[in-house]
Amino acid sequence: MNPDRSSALSFLPLAGLPEVQPGDDLATLLAAAIAGNEGVGALADGDVLVVAQKIVSKSENRFVNLTAVEPSGEANALAARCGKDPRLVELVLRESTEIVRVAPGVLIARHRLGFVVANAAIDQSNVPDGDQRALLLPVDPDRSAQALLEGVRARFSVEIAVLIADSFGRPWRQGVCGVCIGCAGLESLVDLRGGVDRHGRVLKVTQLAIADQLCATASMMLGEAAEGRPMALVRGVPRRFLSTSRGARALVRPLAEDLFR
Amino acid sequence: MNPDRSSALSFLPLAGLPEVQPGDDLATLLAAAIAGNEGVGALADGDVLVVAQKIVSKSENRFVNLTAVEPSGEANALAARCGKDPRLVELVLRESTEIVRVAPGVLIARHRLGFVVANAAIDQSNVPDGDQRALLLPVDPDRSAQALLEGVRARFSVEIAVLIADSFGRPWRQGVCGVCIGCAGLESLVDLRGGVDRHGRVLKVTQLAIADQLCATASMMLGEAAEGRPMALVRGVPRRFLSTSRGARALVRPLAEDLFR
Repeated sequence: MNPDRSSALSFLPLAGLPEVQPGDDLATLLAAAIAGNEGVGALADGDVLVVAQKIVSKSENRFVNLTAVEPSGEANALAARCGKDPRLVELVLRESTEIVRVAPGVLIARHRLGFVVANAAIDQSNVPDGDQRALLLPVDPDRSAQALLEGVRARFSVEIAVLIADSFGRPWRQGVCGVCIGCAGLESLVDLRGGVDRHGRVLKVTQLAIADQLCATASMMLGEAAEGRPMALVRGVPRRFLSTSRGARALVRPLAEDLFR
Repeated sequence: MNPDRSSALSFLPLAGLPEVQPGDDLATLLAAAIAGNEGVGALADGDVLVVAQKIVSKSENRFVNLTAVEPSGEANALAARCGKDPRLVELVLRESTEIVRVAPGVLIARHRLGFVVANAAIDQSNVPDGDQRALLLPVDPDRSAQALLEGVRARFSVEIAVLIADSFGRPWRQGVCGVCIGCAGLESLVDLRGGVDRHGRVLKVTQLAIADQLCATASMMLGEAAEGRPMALVRGVPRRFLSTSRGARALVRPLAEDLFR
């Protein structure tokens, strides 16, 4: 058996980034961390940098002080149905275009970015206790990814991709899994339709969510299980997938095709 | 920045397995392929072998000749609604416990194993044209994974895990992504609830679908985009995740918790 080394994939967790603060220039922090890295070596063309959503949101100061949130009547009614903090529910309503499901302990919304996710992906974990802050998604994660790509590329003169990863639940499967919410420099969705398989048969359903597939594994390193490591480097992604990107927005199924509203 | 090499993850695609035929002893074929491998080296404790569902199904002769399938009235009615081959629809009905959604070009079913998936995960691709065969999921993928684990372990005397990967669509995201349908030797679902984050805050929603996260990336190597490579080796999975496993069945959300029937 001859493993194709050229297509081996490596995920390297990168520790050591300082705690990100609102207003930090994240590209500068990432570049400094990478430059100071003795283990991974310099960035190379084709490297894919996966960054946790939390540090992007923190750098963009997407914190909201819950004590300053006044729940609407709708928020209070929803909170009563799902048993969540009415102030959090108010933020979910502000962040989303549609409430998809409500049940005790469950509030699933369609985020204005199109993601269908619990609590509109608003995050209260990993924020120091007591200050009652919630953390929203970046305003435009694809734009954030593009800015990080350009900031890092400007310092290393390499063609890389940047993915912003979060962890979402799934309607029919237990546990969370990493997904891509922001993407630059990598084709998030690869369309193989019209290609042929090894038997010459035309491929049918073959759009591959490459960016999600990479973020799923990277999230093992970025997640709460990973002691807060906020970034990982992926090496060996097929170069044909690195290109100008339609962004993570291309991963959102159009509303008209949603059979589960 | 000091990357934690000890937690780096590597995915090695493994080519060279012969075309699997019904009745083949897959564990013997895998072991022979691994033994003949010059690039990866011998299997080591903690290695995770990811195998494509197709070759497991083929070895278990889960082929059905469509020309021998007589569609029921229900199948014909469903076929008219979704525009699919009534014989395929008949197989979907036989394989599933519930039809979840029907639309032009779409037939989503709850497979008897609990997976909610298009066409009950029945596969017509990558089967030579003309013979009108469909390929069903293995009868018990967790048992299949356990048998492969034991067969490979018996030959290499190492503690490994075996995952069987398929690619499913998602209701709100474009493109397919790899998921785990069979699992042995790895805790498919890791429950971190009750743990604390780096701020000492108690973790809430923190069940991690580890097996899905690994299969998502591995499927980039196993899928139709990968010229039919049927297996991949994952190195560096945290040893705490390797254990006796509840199997991929632990990843199925209980029916009573399904908000999207």
